Amino acid sequence: MQASDVTTGSVFQTPPEGVDGELLERINRWWRAAKYLAVGMIYLQDNPLLQEPLRPEHIKNRLLGHWGSSPGQAFIWAHANRLIRQRDLDMIYLSGPGHGAPGVLGPTYLDGSYSEVYPDKSRDEAGMRRFFKQFSFPGHIGSHCTPETPGSIHEGGELGYVLSHACGAVFDNPDLIALACVGDGEAETGPLATSWHINKFLNPISDGAVLPVLHLNGYKIANPTLLARIPREELASLLRGYGWEPLFVEGSEPMAMHAAMAAAMEEAVGRIQAIQAEARRSGEAQRPHWPMIVLRSPKGWTGPAALGDKKLEGFWRAHQVPLPGPQKDPEQLAMLETWLRSYRPEELFDEHGTLLPELQALSPQGLRRMGSNPHANGGLLRHRLQLPPIESYAVTVDTPGRVEAENTYPLGELLRDAIGLNPDSLRVFGPDETASNRLQAIYEVSKKVWMEDLLPEDSNGSELARSGRVVEMLSEHTLVGMMEGYVLTGRYGFFHTYEAFAHVIASMFNQHAKWLESCNLHAPWRAPIGPWTCLISSTVWRQDHNGFTHQDPGFIDLAGNKSGDVVRVYMPPDANSLLAVAEEAMLETNVCNIIVSDKQKHLQYMNLEQARAHVAKGISIVRWASNDDCGTQPDDPDVVMACAGDIPSKETLAAVEILRREIPQLKIRVLNVVKLFALTQPSEHPHGLSDRDFDSLFTTNKPVIFNFHGYPWLIHRLTYRRTNHANLHVRGYKEKGNINTPLELAMNNQIDRFNLVIDVIDRVPSLGSRAAHVKEQMKDAILANRAYAHQHGMDAPEVTNWRWTPPQA
Amino acid sequence: MQASDVTTGSVFQTPPEGVDGELLERINRWWRAAKYLAVGMIYLQDNPLLQEPLRPEHIKNRLLGHWGSSPGQAFIWAHANRLIRQRDLDMIYLSGPGHGAPGVLGPTYLDGSYSEVYPDKSRDEAGMRRFFKQFSFPGHIGSHCTPETPGSIHEGGELGYVLSHACGAVFDNPDLIALACVGDGEAETGPLATSWHINKFLNPISDGAVLPVLHLNGYKIANPTLLARIPREELASLLRGYGWEPLFVEGSEPMAMHAAMAAAMEEAVGRIQAIQAEARRSGEAQRPHWPMIVLRSPKGWTGPAALGDKKLEGFWRAHQVPLPGPQKDPEQLAMLETWLRSYRPEELFDEHGTLLPELQALSPQGLRRMGSNPHANGGLLRHRLQLPPIESYAVTVDTPGRVEAENTYPLGELLRDAIGLNPDSLRVFGPDETASNRLQAIYEVSKKVWMEDLLPEDSNGSELARSGRVVEMLSEHTLVGMMEGYVLTGRYGFFHTYEAFAHVIASMFNQHAKWLESCNLHAPWRAPIGPWTCLISSTVWRQDHNGFTHQDPGFIDLAGNKSGDVVRVYMPPDANSLLAVAEEAMLETNVCNIIVSDKQKHLQYMNLEQARAHVAKGISIVRWASNDDCGTQPDDPDVVMACAGDIPSKETLAAVEILRREIPQLKIRVLNVVKLFALTQPSEHPHGLSDRDFDSLFTTNKPVIFNFHGYPWLIHRLTYRRTNHANLHVRGYKEKGNINTPLELAMNNQIDRFNLVIDVIDRVPSLGSRAAHVKEQMKDAILANRAYAHQHGMDAPEVTNWRWTPPQA
Repeated sequence: MQASDVTTGSVFQTPPEGVDGELLERINRWWRAAKYLAVGMIYLQDNPLLQEPLRPEHIKNRLLGHWGSSPGQAFIWAHANRLIRQRDLDMIYLSGPGHGAPGVLGPTYLDGSYSEVYPDKSRDEAGMRRFFKQFSFPGHIGSHCTPETPGSIHEGGELGYVLSHACGAVFDNPDLIALACVGDGEAETGPLATSWHINKFLNPISDGAVLPVLHLNGYKIANPTLLARIPREELASLLRGYGWEPLFVEGSEPMAMHAAMAAAMEEAVGRIQAIQAEARRSGEAQRPHWPMIVLRSPKGWTGPAALGDKKLEGFWRAHQVPLPGPQKDPEQLAMLETWLRSYRPEELFDEHGTLLPELQALSPQGLRRMGSNPHANGGLLRHRLQLPPIESYAVTVDTPGRVEAENTYPLGELLRDAIGLNPDSLRVFGPDETASNRLQAIYEVSKKVWMEDLLPEDSNGSELARSGRVVEMLSEHTLVGMMEGYVLTGRYGFFHTYEAFAHVIASMFNQHAKWLESCNLHAPWRAPIGPWTCLISSTVWRQDHNGFTHQDPGFIDLAGNKSGDVVRVYMPPDANSLLAVAEEAMLETNVCNIIVSDKQKHLQYMNLEQARAHVAKGISIVRWASNDDCGTQPDDPDVVMACAGDIPSKETLAAVEILRREIPQLKIRVLNVVKLFALTQPSEHPHGLSDRDFDSLFTTNKPVIFNFHGYPWLIHRLTYRRTNHANLHVRGYKEKGNINTPLELAMNNQIDRFNLVIDVIDRVPSLGSRAAHVKEQMKDAILANRAYAHQHGMDAPEVTNWRWTPPQA
Repeated sequence: MQASDVTTGSVFQTPPEGVDGELLERINRWWRAAKYLAVGMIYLQDNPLLQEPLRPEHIKNRLLGHWGSSPGQAFIWAHANRLIRQRDLDMIYLSGPGHGAPGVLGPTYLDGSYSEVYPDKSRDEAGMRRFFKQFSFPGHIGSHCTPETPGSIHEGGELGYVLSHACGAVFDNPDLIALACVGDGEAETGPLATSWHINKFLNPISDGAVLPVLHLNGYKIANPTLLARIPREELASLLRGYGWEPLFVEGSEPMAMHAAMAAAMEEAVGRIQAIQAEARRSGEAQRPHWPMIVLRSPKGWTGPAALGDKKLEGFWRAHQVPLPGPQKDPEQLAMLETWLRSYRPEELFDEHGTLLPELQALSPQGLRRMGSNPHANGGLLRHRLQLPPIESYAVTVDTPGRVEAENTYPLGELLRDAIGLNPDSLRVFGPDETASNRLQAIYEVSKKVWMEDLLPEDSNGSELARSGRVVEMLSEHTLVGMMEGYVLTGRYGFFHTYEAFAHVIASMFNQHAKWLESCNLHAPWRAPIGPWTCLISSTVWRQDHNGFTHQDPGFIDLAGNKSGDVVRVYMPPDANSLLAVAEEAMLETNVCNIIVSDKQKHLQYMNLEQARAHVAKGISIVRWASNDDCGTQPDDPDVVMACAGDIPSKETLAAVEILRREIPQLKIRVLNVVKLFALTQPSEHPHGLSDRDFDSLFTTNKPVIFNFHGYPWLIHRLTYRRTNHANLHVRGYKEKGNINTPLELAMNNQIDRFNLVIDVIDRVPSLGSRAAHVKEQMKDAILANRAYAHQHGMDAPEVTNWRWTPPQA
């Protein structure tokens, strides 16, 4: 055993001042209680206090759960408790190896938090029996730190985000310490590997601190871990290279390890507080070398050493359930009983099953308990987001389709002023393109946070500062992890990224949506949190030089797989509708918002009033473009032209203009879809239109040409139950792209004006010979425009400069 | 300027022996030529040799492309060329910052490779004009190293995979060196951050070497990079912690930098060769500390220093097009001409535009040119995969639905023997669960590769070896990157993972599918490569303790968005059909295979002959379960019960058994879908059934109850054009999960036998009062089975042990 600080060579073999042998012994008993609970919840459905000899019927029928990292996590928790009490720390715990939930659930039960949230899991024998049985049991709680876990904001089902979540939690929480246990399996993931760089974004004055504990227990499911098998010097070099100062606590003998861990935790928290005190005293925020702990302890620590010739403790076989068959194998049953009794429950709990008072006294009190810290139920601390009136950002639109504007620029102004109103609770996250996405108005009030060196040239255009509301790093994983940590602790975040590379964080989106779904269903005690918002602003249709690799609008397909209760997809066609969407979306709670809006200049269609009305409905008739009765009479139009998304809307309108000019007798209804899930049934999504409303818009029997931003099949999936689905003809992106001008890419995928005109002519009967002529014109226009693009490297001016011209009545 | 080895303190300020001033000067001229080409392709559409003064009409109308990293990449290439010639190296180049394609395209043009692949881009003025104009020009090549780039296996559209691709390329290519330029922006991504650990899997005896060049040019689009702004000692510590020995080359003065780079490259390659020689001499493979280079040079190196008061060279503004408006701004036009002439093209190219002979002589010859190395067109080197006859692995199935087997175990045997037949060209990749996924038969012939320390206990169960065909690391990104590098260089890979976390590599899948689509369309000179194969073997329906987080079958939805030419999805219901799928899938070329097959025990239905016939068709009638005429008579059944996936198939069959027993007059046709895209039109996918075949299976007007493995909407999306779509009722996963027994999870999502029976009764008219009674029975069964699960923690034995019992005729 030793705890050493490789940076100074000091070795902690004695506990810190004020920690005597009696206290360490008592901490060890508390740890034994936590381990006893961990084993109990994996195995027992009865006889929780072992007041009678263990019999097969006390064992659950199916044994599920993870012992491997549980003792280590409970060990960390034990020592955190001591320091929280000693220094009155505001500290939360994040369990990276989420599968070791027994090592977290036990401590929350010991500190009383669990029984307060779930009174039937009371602090007595009956409660303990229920606490054991529910674990990994059908209809009850899982073996990760699921949302049902008090004190947790990090489930760990998917691995890799514990440090970014912890970082988000301490942003703008200067007194909070997030104790983040990093599993050495998790540490192999890419997201975790780069998230050590969070220290480049943490300001010691205005933010709290993350205290990582890299838990080297040596093994994954069936393999050693990479970081546990490299030489210690190499590991120390790696961690120092990441900017941390590692303190090593290594060994297996409990009492020596307690002394070392007490000393290391004391040292780490002491350094954190010293760093913060100095920065706050001087007012100068520099990037410190924050301390961290490397805890090297055996996997399945203090569990059975071996089963037959199979090594268990300290080996991968201790990962999950070390003794797989105690119900049927008397030898294993005896080993299990010996194992459980090795923690001497009779020295830990009284005859009623209540933790002894001197052990209860080791837990902090009230909201200082890590099982009850309100930051881990962040909705409790959340204030309503203050949004300024959006009127002042609105683009003036006197006539629809005549002026162009950058759709996202006014949103940047809104975010700027929202930051002003919520200076400590709103952050914007993006991988290096806040300005490229035209959100640069934000910089008028706040810069990009940057704790590394600043160079003179940075003052002319880099927009860096020690304290800024914008966080940029070329890791979508880290950014979204930070945003999630920020939102889960009661604040507000806004993420923007490339459409194609939203897939990078697809799994994170899935997991957050599932977290919210679970909160709604299984953890109603969690107060609602702010929305997870992703603006997709470099979209499939404008990748003139990035080309095919950057053309993938499939992220929204994933969103459609999640519960309608927690997912929103918006496709505002212009700047004012984007503002109106933001006004609605940013104020919802417990949802994931996906907003698709290109950053480049686009035609403007709606004034703010119209935009708000449109967003309220989700789908509206574009009256100024339609020449049917717009629903005022019972007559149906000849064709419905629907559109969703900025570019598809423009092309649809251009097609309508051609059709109304060339075939004036054709009655066209134009629809715009701003809430994608308005297309589906209200039973599937709260945005869903009733069949009656849907039919009144889309008709029940007329051709519908739907021009869609994404892959066309999504529209069919959302509408296949609608009356008129058989007449729905959808255009969208179908993987036909390369280096293309905007019109050429549209033409390749047939979402362009010319192909839309052809689609209408092909589907509306009895248009006569004039229509056949127009169709030939359209084919010629396609060829001519492609030739122009290939000759000039750009679209023809009449296309680029196209404006809506109201056809003659 | 200096090049220093921080590990030894040596500083290279002089070039290596044999490299004199004349040679360095000539290398510098070659580099000037490469930079001239880079600027030319970004800006010029005419006057390529500047034989007349630059005029606005010589400039392209739209300026797209990335200058930032291009000079650095061409610099690396120049020095690689020297060493390749000097030592006859087999070396390929991978461009991490793929956006700097001008820095790669130029060198491939200079070494003649480009003109050989594209004869119209000839080595003269006319060819150079076309070479310039095509770059980032509509209908032509992109600004990444797209598949059209000779010598490239790495496009870099999405960032983060250059090291894992390089590692895959050198696996089992002992004489190959993959020179991998890592962008400092890219280095911030998670996938790249963890991929430095590839050195834990590279065997110096049997594998080649990766030589990373971390290119610190300091800036991303609008930000400094993290790694360029930390102190050099911190960076060196990080890289050493990752297990590399960094050699630093830093500065901006070209001639000094040439001397330093020549020395550093010489040192790096010398160390690589010494490491390999020693390992191969001794026969002992240890993990060496491989060398790498840190190249710190200005962004946009040697480009214009500033535009007005805006710093360009050495700042983020040099990222893309430093002078944005030379066509309209005479000052910028003059600056551009000065910039281009600063490379003195008249000293580089003759009057015809051909590179001068003494500069041509700097490139290697023939296949040693990095633009022509056959490893970068791996299909050329690919041998047909040798597969053993699968008969010997087949499970004996005398009667369908009576015996259980682990579906994936025989596949493991097949992989085992395939490895035996292809010992140097087939690898299996997985994140820590080859055994858990029941593929452990592989270990009979080959272990997991592991270059870190081995402990005594590893000999009992860890299956580690210095040289193994199985690669396990808890980073799906790194594994898939390795597999892609391996496949792109002409070998075969097999990846297996959790279904929910296939989303982690969703973007990688998208990019590989797009690469293949582009190869088919735009780079026919690329020889076909082996398939990208992903086995999903821990599926949504068996997450008894992982619970809700691990329930996400949406990855296959993404696959449906890609071109049918390059994507395959298979859902074999049993072991023999999985073998038959593997036999077909592993031999296809230029495709991505997704195979969904749970690892646990399942009922067996088909003997091998039947399985092969089923896979050949894609969708078949399950005759032994059906009681209609199975298409032999013109009569239709009363109901079609279709299924796709192992669990849904079992539940469908159990429902059929109930229906045939309880309502014997009901004529049921049972269909199984093994190729998912057989459901769609042949115009959409080569697996697609004709409408006639589809209608003959699914009928044109009878109810179809489709029990699906994934999210149900995917089936609607695939079938919405089919005649009988309106009668298609799809069950699938709909996000109703928690900790559940297998049957309970099925019941929650209504894919279980009882709900399926109810579905049939609700949709087939005139079944009479008996049916109403059966429906009540089913409701009771649902309640009873849920109660059983919640009491016992497992499903009732009659459910778990259910076997198909042929109903009485």
